[in-house]
Amino acid sequence: MLLPEVPEVVILRLPLYVRALTQLLVSGDDVVSSQQLGSHLQMTPAQIRKDLSYFGRFGKQGRGYNVRFLLKELREILGLEREWRACLVGMGRLGRAIINYPGFAPQGFEIVAAFDNDPKKVGGTVGGISVQTMSEIKETVVAKKVDIAIVAVPAQHVQTVVDEVLATGVSGILNYAPVVPQVPPEVVIRNIDPVLSLQSMTFYLQQKEGR
Amino acid sequence: MLLPEVPEVVILRLPLYVRALTQLLVSGDDVVSSQQLGSHLQMTPAQIRKDLSYFGRFGKQGRGYNVRFLLKELREILGLEREWRACLVGMGRLGRAIINYPGFAPQGFEIVAAFDNDPKKVGGTVGGISVQTMSEIKETVVAKKVDIAIVAVPAQHVQTVVDEVLATGVSGILNYAPVVPQVPPEVVIRNIDPVLSLQSMTFYLQQKEGR
Repeated sequence: MLLPEVPEVVILRLPLYVRALTQLLVSGDDVVSSQQLGSHLQMTPAQIRKDLSYFGRFGKQGRGYNVRFLLKELREILGLEREWRACLVGMGRLGRAIINYPGFAPQGFEIVAAFDNDPKKVGGTVGGISVQTMSEIKETVVAKKVDIAIVAVPAQHVQTVVDEVLATGVSGILNYAPVVPQVPPEVVIRNIDPVLSLQSMTFYLQQKEGR
Repeated sequence: MLLPEVPEVVILRLPLYVRALTQLLVSGDDVVSSQQLGSHLQMTPAQIRKDLSYFGRFGKQGRGYNVRFLLKELREILGLEREWRACLVGMGRLGRAIINYPGFAPQGFEIVAAFDNDPKKVGGTVGGISVQTMSEIKETVVAKKVDIAIVAVPAQHVQTVVDEVLATGVSGILNYAPVVPQVPPEVVIRNIDPVLSLQSMTFYLQQKEGR
């Protein structure tokens, strides 16, 4: 499907739509209005209609959206109707928590390889995955058809590790370190950083206290 | 300081500015241009000037920004020149990883209390914090002046736990569960969800493959 230029903020909202529609489907709802979807997502109906309009006509005026159809279309647009294979770089405490995180596999994300340069960790097995050295990453990524690298290394090593990952041809990175590495524009990177989330939250908390 | 309506996307970017300016300060840079700051953050100089213009005049035409002054002002605007106290709800594997996460304290976020309803966990100590039952949350939050609750419970318990947290008067929530709880508009909530990050990433990865 050829898509027009869709603003990134709209793309970032689509997974929330997928989640809400999945809940509606599970509850047995066949049709949903933009009002109902809006109350699930705390968005205005107009915003929802505008977001969906980028991808074609999903609803009939006054008839609402067919839940199953809209869900399948959005999942296809997002690339969620297939499996994605990830490797994990960094097997410290955070890496071990990530590899044991139960939320990835049910959503089609499978961690198939793990890397660390600590000789004490290499050769061990965590969550059923054997830990390899970084020198093996390129070969493994190609052999195991890895699409995404999850990076969970200390801040000072992130840029080096990300550069090594990009050299393997992987172009999707989920970075857990509290720094934002530099990547070429064609790379898709998401930075997960609880402190960053807290630091924008405090703006609003402080404003409330000031009132 | 009274601020005009600042778009939330701008507020969400300010912590990145703070981080980049901190790095510049550490490197010994006194002055930075919007070009230089932009290359750190992968943003256009025009976007940076526009973002900062919401908060007053920080730079002189053609002179760049004073790093130390801009950093301090942005930290004050964000509420980062004080300490924030957090409690953690949910002491499973994820909760234990969070309580041991070394990134919070250096940034002024201190976890001062932990809660779980599992009798096997209550009374134990994790990361120097004793685990209490949820029935003690209101009293503890008031006594310890907690500002923020970090919620790390399974998806099916999130809404109940968030409702209990809000009943204590805490109005800032950092939610690690892969569901988005409903909260009143005056509550500041951030949802950390690696799957959500992956699910918007796949849109772009799929488009690249299609080319």
